[in-house]
This record gives sequence, C-alpha cells and structure tokens, in this order.
Amino acid sequence: MENFEEPIERLIEYFRSLPGVGLKTAQRYAFFIIENSKEKAENFANAILDAKNKVKLCRECGNYCAQDVCKICERRNQKIVCVVQEPKDIISMEKVKSYDGVYHVLFGCINPLENKGPNDIRIKELLSRVQKNGVQEVIMATNPDVEGEATAMYIAKLLRPMGVKVTRLAQGISIGSDIEFADEVTLEKALKSRQEI
Amino acid sequence: MENFEEPIERLIEYFRSLPGVGLKTAQRYAFFIIENSKEKAENFANAILDAKNKVKLCRECGNYCAQDVCKICERRNQKIVCVVQEPKDIISMEKVKSYDGVYHVLFGCINPLENKGPNDIRIKELLSRVQKNGVQEVIMATNPDVEGEATAMYIAKLLRPMGVKVTRLAQGISIGSDIEFADEVTLEKALKSRQEI
Repeated sequence: MENFEEPIERLIEYFRSLPGVGLKTAQRYAFFIIENSKEKAENFANAILDAKNKVKLCRECGNYCAQDVCKICERRNQKIVCVVQEPKDIISMEKVKSYDGVYHVLFGCINPLENKGPNDIRIKELLSRVQKNGVQEVIMATNPDVEGEATAMYIAKLLRPMGVKVTRLAQGISIGSDIEFADEVTLEKALKSRQEI
Repeated sequence: MENFEEPIERLIEYFRSLPGVGLKTAQRYAFFIIENSKEKAENFANAILDAKNKVKLCRECGNYCAQDVCKICERRNQKIVCVVQEPKDIISMEKVKSYDGVYHVLFGCINPLENKGPNDIRIKELLSRVQKNGVQEVIMATNPDVEGEATAMYIAKLLRPMGVKVTRLAQGISIGSDIEFADEVTLEKALKSRQEI
C-alpha cells in the first residue's frame, strides 16, 4: 500500500532483500520490530553491525570466525581436512558428531558458466596447507552435482602426487528415503557402489 | 552447532526471534548479512533503528506513522471510520481501493482470558473522535471470532445512542473458495444473510 510511512517502508524493503522473504513476511518482521521494545531494536541493529564488522575468515580454513583462527582449526586434528564449497556446508557437516578433523572452504567450485576457474576458489591455500601440516587425508565434500564433481576430481588430481589420500563422500540413496522416488542417476551410483553385507 | 563464533551466533538468535523464523532460516539470513557489503549491513541496522525511533502512533487513528497525524487521516473522509484491531489490519483493508474513509486502531479486543477489558483498548478515543468529527458511520472490522464479535457488539452499544450508524463487515463464504470445504458456522451465517439476486 502506498500509505506506509517512509521508515516502515524502508525497513520492509530491507527485510524483503533477505533470501526467500516476500512482501507479506517482510511486513510481519517490520511490525514485529516496531511493536517490540526500543532496547531490542537496538540490540538487533548492533548484532547486524557486529556480525558484519567482527566476523572475518579463518586464516587456516576460510570459515567465518571472530579471531584469526577459528575454534575448529584450533582444537581439532589437522591431519584430516574436509573440503567444502561454502561455510554453511560446515554447519551441516558438524551435525556428524564423530568427525574430528578440520575443514577447508573453497568459496565456490569450478564453474565455467559463471566464469569461475581454479584460481578463483581457494585451491592454492588448500595445497599449501596440505604441505605445511603434513595432512594425511583430504575428504572432498563438494556438492554431488556436475560442478562439485568436476572440482573434486580436479583437486584430487593435484593432491595425489603429494602422497595424500583423497576420498569423496559416498553417494547413494538417502537414509529414510524411498527407492520408489529415487532418481535413476542416484540409483545407478548406489548400484555401482553396492557393498557386501 | 556449538562451534559458531559469538557475533554470528548472536545475529542468528535475533533473527530467530522474528515471528515464524526457525534455526535454519535464521542461519540463512545471518549468512546473507555476512556475505553482503558492509554498507548494506549498516543501512539495514539503521532501518531497524529508524523504524523503531521515528515511528509513532497517529494522534487520530492510532496507526503507525512518522508524523503526528498519518497520511490517511490527513487526506480522507473523516465521516466514515473503520474500526480494526491492529495496524496490520489496515494494510489488508487498504487493498480495497474503493474505501475512502479513515481508520481507528483498537490495539486488541476485549478478551477476558487475556485480562483485556474495555479500558485496555482504544474505545474511549473512538467515542471522543466520533463526537468531535461528527462521524456518520462506524464500520466494525474486528476479527470474525468470539472476541472480535463481542468487541464489535460492545462498541456498537456505546455508539448507537450517539446517533451514529454502526455497521459490521458482511460474513459469509469467501470468494473463490469451495462450499465443500466451508465450515458449518460460516455456512449457517451465509444462509441466514442470504440475499435476493
């Protein structure tokens, strides 16, 4: 409606710019801010500024952190490195409580359509890290699509001569899913990689 | 995951406090802020502060506005007042382009379960406004539930002796809906209020 006052309209616009937020949801968020305490609004605004100003990339793995080196790199086994495309992939991987190694964020993958070559993602940093720390195993956890697959292959080719074991997350049918609804590429992969029980 | 750094964790918490936002969505919003420009983060934070600091209630109708009197009260026909429970109800009503009257926000409705009596919502302000402006019609647009209905009846009883026409939004089946799925209370209301065609 054109009758919104400017400060409300502007806040709605900013909320709309968040991923997946439409007009109705943005209005709901904006009203929530207006209806809540001034203190809460100030804290919210500060949290945004702090996150943007204090968060930098970990010198080792490239994950977001507030110090020079992130908590994961500080505490965990440096001999095993799991390579992911984005920091948010680390959140998912961390749900696997048993993993004790560290991570390496590429910030993307090799994608000719987006003009992203091997020099545009953090491959150089990975190689020097492997050398420096005497890494024993690199687990490729790039996405299981064409670009992620190609990136994993490319990096594996560079790493193998360095005497490091390179592995890839297993591909197959998801636990709890239905074979009826599995696509043929996944099923073919699952059949090929079948294991004795 | 416990490995989030404090500024990210805090931002996620604030996004989570928005209505209908879960952990996953909040993380997505937080990463969006971190991945975008510093300028954008600053503007976002300012938009929140501005909306909270500059927005006040319109002296006349109680709607959110940045001046003393909102744009709707300034420009439109003061003789017809549409009474709503919340400012967001005005957004919905404004989609009806043909309505030229003004609004009155009650900020809630009479609800004994929540300890809200007639003195806790803006009824007094409505009465003095009706008297002051010589209002001809008051349209009750409170929600069609028990509390909204009771509030409409209560206010109508106070207004009728003042010689003002009090109306209520028509209740019946929604346009485009399916009679098969209409609930019995709505159907009964629609049947009772049937009109000759």
